Amino acid sequence: MRTVIRRATAADAAQILEFIRALAAFERAPDAVTATEEGLIRDGFGPNPLYRCLIADYDGQPAGFAFYFFNYSKWVGRPGIYVEDLFVLPQFRRLGIGRELLRQVAAIAMETGCQRLQWEVLDWNTPAIDFYRAIGAEFLDEWRNVRLSGEALERL
Amino acid sequence: MRTVIRRATAADAAQILEFIRALAAFERAPDAVTATEEGLIRDGFGPNPLYRCLIADYDGQPAGFAFYFFNYSKWVGRPGIYVEDLFVLPQFRRLGIGRELLRQVAAIAMETGCQRLQWEVLDWNTPAIDFYRAIGAEFLDEWRNVRLSGEALERL
Repeated sequence: MRTVIRRATAADAAQILEFIRALAAFERAPDAVTATEEGLIRDGFGPNPLYRCLIADYDGQPAGFAFYFFNYSKWVGRPGIYVEDLFVLPQFRRLGIGRELLRQVAAIAMETGCQRLQWEVLDWNTPAIDFYRAIGAEFLDEWRNVRLSGEALERL
Repeated sequence: MRTVIRRATAADAAQILEFIRALAAFERAPDAVTATEEGLIRDGFGPNPLYRCLIADYDGQPAGFAFYFFNYSKWVGRPGIYVEDLFVLPQFRRLGIGRELLRQVAAIAMETGCQRLQWEVLDWNTPAIDFYRAIGAEFLDEWRNVRLSGEALERL
């Protein structure tokens, strides 16, 4: 197996930021990233991490990452995992790396008693949608995502 | 002001479970709740809470709740708040209680350096959608919600 999945450490912060920037460009929002290496270290690798990260190396080269955090299903009263990002650099696609990353997140979910993985996908990202359908994921299209930020948040 | 918003304590677990059940019935999934009072106490009121909860009392009667947890915006490198539930019992609606609950969550977001609130709404819940639009929320309809659970999760 040429793909190795490992848990990120603080030493990976610069690489994580590179992945975040590459993904933002893919999601057509290249200027949206204002996160810094220092912030990622502070928030991800202290005593109470706000996020977790797995890195996929392919032949020793960083090829992709999964960025996630724990949420909570109040219906079943159990934690769940929310996958904020699952991303493989273009030159490393079609090698099964995304699947392997998601499989490792699923393994962590099972180990920690989580009942579900959740994430979001852009409606034009057909290859990703096909992949998610193939592994048996459900699409909860009855739910709309809502966000309050900036001035509207301050006003409220 | 007849509405008082307060942070839930372990002593509110039975009430929280009642709200969760009432909301599941409203969301047309009355049998989906298998959470228990003990589980809610363990997960919400230990040293590392998996969720947080505000309760709205109206004239001393529990009238509604906001159930939320912290997530993380990797683009801006700051925590955010995900509002899992915002619910007011039918007999207490149209009194501004939902708005007051959301306003308190927004205040907590500002205090803790969060850049945004996020939540989901059922696409047939028109009164809620109108309210969210009125306070300046954005609808991120380009994103589809995906979930992997049960057998499909174990298989992966």
